[in-house]
Amino acid sequence: MKANERIKIRIAGSGGQGVVLASIILAEAAGIYEGFEVAQSQSYGPEARGGHCKAEVVISDAPIDYPRALNLDVLLTLNQASLDEYYYDLKESGVLIVNSDQCHNVLRATAYRIPFSTLARDSVGVPQTMNIVALGAFAGITGIVSPASLKKAVLARAPKGTEKANARAMNLGVRHGLEARENMKHRLPRKFSRLILMNE
Amino acid sequence: MKANERIKIRIAGSGGQGVVLASIILAEAAGIYEGFEVAQSQSYGPEARGGHCKAEVVISDAPIDYPRALNLDVLLTLNQASLDEYYYDLKESGVLIVNSDQCHNVLRATAYRIPFSTLARDSVGVPQTMNIVALGAFAGITGIVSPASLKKAVLARAPKGTEKANARAMNLGVRHGLEARENMKHRLPRKFSRLILMNE
Repeated sequence: MKANERIKIRIAGSGGQGVVLASIILAEAAGIYEGFEVAQSQSYGPEARGGHCKAEVVISDAPIDYPRALNLDVLLTLNQASLDEYYYDLKESGVLIVNSDQCHNVLRATAYRIPFSTLARDSVGVPQTMNIVALGAFAGITGIVSPASLKKAVLARAPKGTEKANARAMNLGVRHGLEARENMKHRLPRKFSRLILMNE
Repeated sequence: MKANERIKIRIAGSGGQGVVLASIILAEAAGIYEGFEVAQSQSYGPEARGGHCKAEVVISDAPIDYPRALNLDVLLTLNQASLDEYYYDLKESGVLIVNSDQCHNVLRATAYRIPFSTLARDSVGVPQTMNIVALGAFAGITGIVSPASLKKAVLARAPKGTEKANARAMNLGVRHGLEARENMKHRLPRKFSRLILMNE
């Protein structure tokens, strides 16, 4: 049975923060390892050339006709500029996850704030894994993809020699995501659990 | 002045052939380094889980509303299964580029046939660069992205330590693409040159 639930996610940051790769890993975790229907996309235009970077993932239990993510269910931003740029594309009931190291001015009280940059630099020891820490946190917070599926997808895309650091980054992100989830009084949108249940 | 030309490209192959990465590199070459408007996407569903892999790039001189590539202008296939699957999505006037090592049954007389696998294995010495050889050939044949832009995009995405092999793969692909282009009597669609001129 299909519920026709569709969750629209945007990941955004500056060029070099690994936004596109994070988005593809999330799409592959959900589409290949969890069995959802997934559309993943990015567009390049004047704003991309300005150093902005955004990528979108739509996850559904039914085929997706139109892959653009408007009226977002989840916005994950890695820096302040992208948060400012895309904040108003997020639904009122949507989930906001921010890199608290680079997003200081956050309008929403229910935002999940996790210091992805600090965690990648100090706890993983590899600043470049910041995007993977963020993905792990996404999984921990939303529950849409399991840590196991995400790990497979991360390892399938990790350059040779970086597997261990990426696995550590992911686990760390998941842990912080789960913790943030528990501390937050705000409820996740009910469609998240409907989608997850429908897929089982 | 905008001509509103739009070129729809699909790259397809089996999982592990680097289809998604090739598609992103092409999108970044065209969007970031050539200044076109570009939408890049892939979707994951039952067919992806069967080992198929396809990704799409739409290149335009004007903003792109609908990023899905239907009625293709260019189809680049890395194996026979993906050629069989997507052949009929290619316009009659479209450009077909195939990996002749893995595509033996090609219905179109005007197809560009280049042994990407052999070139990557024997001339570059790194079989995994097959997708980059194919991208180089795409650039040489179509002229839509310049070798210089493509090289920047390849190097920005190449994992550390693989830069030289990838640059060699790209140059080799471009050379074979240009050669194939000269030997082919078939004319490229006129919209290709209109798009290129409009961008200058």
